[in-house]
Amino acid sequence: MPAAGSGKVSDDRYSGGSRRGAIPPFIAMDVLRAANALAAGGARVLHLEVGQPSSGAPEPVLRAAALALAEDRLGYTDALGVEKLRRRIALHYGEAYRIDLDWQRVAVTGGSSGGFVLAFLAAFDAGQRVAVGVPGYPAYRNILSALGVDVVRLPLDESTRFQPTPAMLDDLVRRVGRIDGLIVASPANPTSSMLDGTALAALAGWCREQGTRLISDEIYHGIAFAGRAETALSFGNDAIVVNSFSKYYAMTGWRIGWLVLPERLRRAIECLAQNLYISPPSLSQHAAIGAFDCAAILDRHVDRYAANRAVLLDALPRAGFRRLAPADGAFYLYAELGENDPDSAEVSRLLLEEACVAITPGIDFDPERGHRFVRFSYAGETAAIEEAAARLIAWRDRHCSRA
Amino acid sequence: MPAAGSGKVSDDRYSGGSRRGAIPPFIAMDVLRAANALAAGGARVLHLEVGQPSSGAPEPVLRAAALALAEDRLGYTDALGVEKLRRRIALHYGEAYRIDLDWQRVAVTGGSSGGFVLAFLAAFDAGQRVAVGVPGYPAYRNILSALGVDVVRLPLDESTRFQPTPAMLDDLVRRVGRIDGLIVASPANPTSSMLDGTALAALAGWCREQGTRLISDEIYHGIAFAGRAETALSFGNDAIVVNSFSKYYAMTGWRIGWLVLPERLRRAIECLAQNLYISPPSLSQHAAIGAFDCAAILDRHVDRYAANRAVLLDALPRAGFRRLAPADGAFYLYAELGENDPDSAEVSRLLLEEACVAITPGIDFDPERGHRFVRFSYAGETAAIEEAAARLIAWRDRHCSRA
Repeated sequence: MPAAGSGKVSDDRYSGGSRRGAIPPFIAMDVLRAANALAAGGARVLHLEVGQPSSGAPEPVLRAAALALAEDRLGYTDALGVEKLRRRIALHYGEAYRIDLDWQRVAVTGGSSGGFVLAFLAAFDAGQRVAVGVPGYPAYRNILSALGVDVVRLPLDESTRFQPTPAMLDDLVRRVGRIDGLIVASPANPTSSMLDGTALAALAGWCREQGTRLISDEIYHGIAFAGRAETALSFGNDAIVVNSFSKYYAMTGWRIGWLVLPERLRRAIECLAQNLYISPPSLSQHAAIGAFDCAAILDRHVDRYAANRAVLLDALPRAGFRRLAPADGAFYLYAELGENDPDSAEVSRLLLEEACVAITPGIDFDPERGHRFVRFSYAGETAAIEEAAARLIAWRDRHCSRA
Repeated sequence: MPAAGSGKVSDDRYSGGSRRGAIPPFIAMDVLRAANALAAGGARVLHLEVGQPSSGAPEPVLRAAALALAEDRLGYTDALGVEKLRRRIALHYGEAYRIDLDWQRVAVTGGSSGGFVLAFLAAFDAGQRVAVGVPGYPAYRNILSALGVDVVRLPLDESTRFQPTPAMLDDLVRRVGRIDGLIVASPANPTSSMLDGTALAALAGWCREQGTRLISDEIYHGIAFAGRAETALSFGNDAIVVNSFSKYYAMTGWRIGWLVLPERLRRAIECLAQNLYISPPSLSQHAAIGAFDCAAILDRHVDRYAANRAVLLDALPRAGFRRLAPADGAFYLYAELGENDPDSAEVSRLLLEEACVAITPGIDFDPERGHRFVRFSYAGETAAIEEAAARLIAWRDRHCSRA
């Protein structure tokens, strides 16, 4: 059998692709692959690199999926999702935030990822300017870059608990000019820092005054250790809210999330979704309806994250990771390395090779300062987190005794 | 309970969204919604508007899905998909085309739609020029536009069986200059026209000589009535091949497809996929592995499409649709309206209202000449197609007797 196109092969005339296509990897996913390769060789790797609950979807979700599998043709749905799920999500805003939300403003998407692509295309033209906090979720920057949007990095640190403030944004506008969009996340990735209602209201108000489109990433809502997370919907109808069934609802691989849209963007998002995605996965839509009846199960996951968090808050300083960002919610600890540590890529490599603990180097989240930070995800089982903690401490001890 | 953000609502400062976000709808999906609304009122609507097999996924796929639901955590996978499915797809090229394909060139995507977004971003920068035949699948044009790529429409007609030729492309280059990309589809949507091996090889050769990236949409492979469809992989390794489990494999709502990539684009596509999608839906990936063992079931679907095609080839001329594009494969008939007919949007509206038959106006596929064409999809049950045929003839008779 000949190899594909053998004898006629040459792509020498091609540059190898577009300039905009050359975006950075999502390093956490690359670490996951390296960790899986190590595990395939027999090593017992502990996964603290990816923000993925170790629990699968809760039982009622699986039952709803099995029912849909048996009874539904699983064809295309409306591009914005099946009405029953859109209505259920809208109802959730009543239950969780006491907000009366028109279900037609809800767009079901292929995870929050699909939502970001739609939101960014609908809200921003190429060459427009969007402010993004760093450290922050790398896909914000990378998707915006791929779509030709100018990313303005807003360096965040402990002084404002790793969140933007209106004063910082005023300063940014003085320096670079008008900002067309702002992305906020509370709880945030990788810092787990949260905005309280007053702080979020102030940012929403600033955006409204400036005509800046606010995009509020609320994917970690439901996982909070310092008060409840507030939704941007409480402070106006002009934000685009992004959410997902991947984190609190533990449905990562189901690729299902949602947007809450300003009225005026609804038709544009619908046309974009029809063309870019046709519709979100049908089975996941039917299953996700069941997710809202699982609070008892899902809140036990949050209890587990709280226990894991306590384990790491105790262990990390003993393992030499002394400066930790606020851990208000989500399931991450973002740690600054010590002065004598090598850079974060090297620390991550050493930990994987020498202790079989996979973590993510900070350069994923902050290209400039991230070489001095690492992120620990504690969405796993408590036993695994405890063992990781022990390995981290032992690893540090070995390195110190050698030094 | 207050309405969301009541009292503070104002998005008056916003234009309502980006310019590029204002792309046209996928009209077939809008017709589907109108047809569903009519059906919800009690009408028995016959669906000839959407390119969706009426059969659901075959039994072995459903069994594989049920097994994965019971046994797999359904977490994130590698961004390019699980190795087992990528290997199985590569093997398919050996079985179906006698091509020995490296599985690492296969990228699993969220339907062909997800594949197009990745391929277009990786291959083309904003402002580059891509030739797209019209009539053609509207999402090619609409996604490219949303991504800032210049779409050069290549008007196709019966004289070349609705397919591009090297002579036409030479002429295009003389008129507009260099072409960075060309999209071909065989079988094509909406015309169902196919390229034979000689014709596809000639186009691939032209692209290679010109340094034009060829994107070959092979989503309707497996559904052919005039010889087998050829893959662009047989004529070089520089094309991007797009395919899906939605058509022959009847897995529309599962949102699962694949790309075959030139070696040099692999890492760019991987980074884009990590950032834009994280990974394709896990359950659909596990289930799709089973799809390759279903030829006996799936070929019976193709037999049904052949029967449906025969019904419409007989009935449509009697219903006044006399000029039909070649119906070599897929499950569409693209028909030119008669001189005395109103435009295609009006014909589609009248047919839906007066005969409860949903079809798609040609403007979805050809913004310039499509007001004189309509598309009939015959992926439904034969009994439904027969009834639709009878309704079309009766509808035409009523209109003629009135005229």
